[in-house]
Amino acid sequence: MNPPKAVIIGCGFAGLAAAKQLADTEVEVTIIDQSNHHLFQPLLYQVATGDLSPSEIAWPIRSIFAQAKNITVIQDEVLQVDKAEKQVITQNGRYAYDYLVVATGAQNAYFGQEQWAPHAPGLKNLKDALSIRRDIFSAFEQAERCDDETERQAYMTFVVIGGGPTGVEMAGAIAEIARSTLAKDFRHIDTRKARVVLVEGGKQLLAGFDDRLCRYAAKALQRMGVELIFDRFVQNIEADTVSLADQHIAAHTIIWAAGVKPQVAQLLGVEAQKNGKVAVDAKLRLPTHPDIFVVGDAAAVDWQDGTVPGIAPAAKQQGQYVGRLLRQHATIEEAKPFKYQHAGNLATIGRHKAVADLKRLKFKGWPAWYFWGLIHIYFLIGVRSATVILLQWFWTYLTNRKPARLIIGSKNKDPD
Amino acid sequence: MNPPKAVIIGCGFAGLAAAKQLADTEVEVTIIDQSNHHLFQPLLYQVATGDLSPSEIAWPIRSIFAQAKNITVIQDEVLQVDKAEKQVITQNGRYAYDYLVVATGAQNAYFGQEQWAPHAPGLKNLKDALSIRRDIFSAFEQAERCDDETERQAYMTFVVIGGGPTGVEMAGAIAEIARSTLAKDFRHIDTRKARVVLVEGGKQLLAGFDDRLCRYAAKALQRMGVELIFDRFVQNIEADTVSLADQHIAAHTIIWAAGVKPQVAQLLGVEAQKNGKVAVDAKLRLPTHPDIFVVGDAAAVDWQDGTVPGIAPAAKQQGQYVGRLLRQHATIEEAKPFKYQHAGNLATIGRHKAVADLKRLKFKGWPAWYFWGLIHIYFLIGVRSATVILLQWFWTYLTNRKPARLIIGSKNKDPD
Repeated sequence: MNPPKAVIIGCGFAGLAAAKQLADTEVEVTIIDQSNHHLFQPLLYQVATGDLSPSEIAWPIRSIFAQAKNITVIQDEVLQVDKAEKQVITQNGRYAYDYLVVATGAQNAYFGQEQWAPHAPGLKNLKDALSIRRDIFSAFEQAERCDDETERQAYMTFVVIGGGPTGVEMAGAIAEIARSTLAKDFRHIDTRKARVVLVEGGKQLLAGFDDRLCRYAAKALQRMGVELIFDRFVQNIEADTVSLADQHIAAHTIIWAAGVKPQVAQLLGVEAQKNGKVAVDAKLRLPTHPDIFVVGDAAAVDWQDGTVPGIAPAAKQQGQYVGRLLRQHATIEEAKPFKYQHAGNLATIGRHKAVADLKRLKFKGWPAWYFWGLIHIYFLIGVRSATVILLQWFWTYLTNRKPARLIIGSKNKDPD
Repeated sequence: MNPPKAVIIGCGFAGLAAAKQLADTEVEVTIIDQSNHHLFQPLLYQVATGDLSPSEIAWPIRSIFAQAKNITVIQDEVLQVDKAEKQVITQNGRYAYDYLVVATGAQNAYFGQEQWAPHAPGLKNLKDALSIRRDIFSAFEQAERCDDETERQAYMTFVVIGGGPTGVEMAGAIAEIARSTLAKDFRHIDTRKARVVLVEGGKQLLAGFDDRLCRYAAKALQRMGVELIFDRFVQNIEADTVSLADQHIAAHTIIWAAGVKPQVAQLLGVEAQKNGKVAVDAKLRLPTHPDIFVVGDAAAVDWQDGTVPGIAPAAKQQGQYVGRLLRQHATIEEAKPFKYQHAGNLATIGRHKAVADLKRLKFKGWPAWYFWGLIHIYFLIGVRSATVILLQWFWTYLTNRKPARLIIGSKNKDPD
């Protein structure tokens, strides 16, 4: 019997974990990803805020697997899966599989208002992050050279939509940029007077965290000068304006952190659930096609009252599970079902401010902040030596400067 | 008498040096630059080849001068200088000056064939560098997934036009990427078989360097697998083709390193010389307007048989000279004329290969390579602590990996 061919679509946390289990086995693995790098998404917001450079949180997929001769990496866009022929159809070719692992993650979702996207970019890939970085730092540049008071106010206003971990991190980081990093750099504007607004549809931040931690996060952000608006959904977003039920906010920089949704169902030709995820069996397979596994954000895996959360450790566990199944592909039928181990939730708010909601332990402030830093370095070590990151962080921490606040290209002339 | 207003247009080596002389003096300085950062151009090719990240060779201008309260930084594009009214007109405003320092540098020049530009990008700013980086690494990705042999050959062919220091550096670096960095990463192509072609119009590389060093550079590049074509001018460049008098080269990646030209004359409303530079007097002033100084690549300053070369130390010396004149603006008439001190020429070819052509000393190979490294670190220290760069280099050197070979965005879908 020939060794089986496995195709993995997407090399985020889930896809990478599956591939790592299959490195140097007899399985012939092809990884297809539309970008050439694996991205450490939990730190993506630090690229957007100029703390880190792209190369500090992203690594070429093929360099990760350079030594694993059974793994081929293809940078290409997948158009469709032909389940009958067992082929993945990409823009440039076709790839036959015996087993397919679909790890395509989730994409920014605007509740059906996709026309909002250009005005309020989300934060899912490096391009998003660099474009948000350019918006933030360009806004201050434009305010500095602007004569009109109303216009200047719009440049100095930053609206973050969505009060989950990403929204809290972004709002906190922008407040720090304005209050501290840039405080001495300008002559005509006082960056400390910048308005940072966080809009959340629910009644508190960080839904799913312990109540006490949610309240702490809100207070900490307010002390940093962030205006919190609760219980308001966005009704419209245009260039330079966010409209809520009771007010319009004139803001040049608008950031979308209000939700993501998998777009996987069409690719697979199956029904999507309301949240965009697709149903899988206890071994993360499509019920109708036991040769197709769906892992990470794209899969609807039951847990507690809902589904497994869309966080990195969950994706990693699912990828590892499927990778192990395929490594012992002869015995898939006897394998135990997937079981999610929830370690906890973490979110950082700003320098020396974070919240940690673990199984038995809940804490906040600087202990949570250091814990958050340690955990992220620990996870990064999985990909490459964290030395450079550690040193860079330490340096940024000592000097309290943003090393990477460069504006490259311009929004109007050359949209990128 | 009011303190004088000085406007500096451009914050490359010349503009930065002038501004540094004026920090914390009574002169009211406004720096206008179209980008928000000072760029350490001698290492720009390393951003293009994925060795360094943008933030390692560029720094926000306003953070350099955050402490100098007499210096205002404006990110804006200068449209014209009104010499009669003594005003600089930008896209967004007008800035009055008593003294004007024009340090606008030089731009990529295609000998009047500007239609070549999109097919053969030059290497003048971070955007250029990132776009060349994307072209180089994308070409290997496309070759890996390509079925057609002719097309694959074009993806695997890299043409660098121009045999000056930038062309030599780029050709050497691409050869190293193909022969060493990527050698183990691909499954369907052998990157070591990539064709790297360097086209030079003259009879040798590195014109202006000592003959023996020029011959060494040519031999070193050939040993690294670079094909050298001498004595041929480019007759046409189209997408994927470079045409010389006697051959067409099918190449997906074409890099322009054959020349730059200042575009300053129109801005100032004066005559340009054939090389694009404008004539200045012995104190680097426009002969007709002693309140306007021109420094760096834009100025035609006599030296030996021609003009001062377009290298960083020359620009720096001119900027420093004018900065000192303005610091003592009451005594400009008595000041000594500018005198260029030529320290020498340096060019790097590859790992452990460089040439140094100093006043009394000429050397090559690894001593020149280490010397080149030391000199660049020394110059970088002028801008910020070089610790991080040093560590990054050391790390790259030890591992022989390119940390930053990320492809962000795509050429066809989203030109940036």
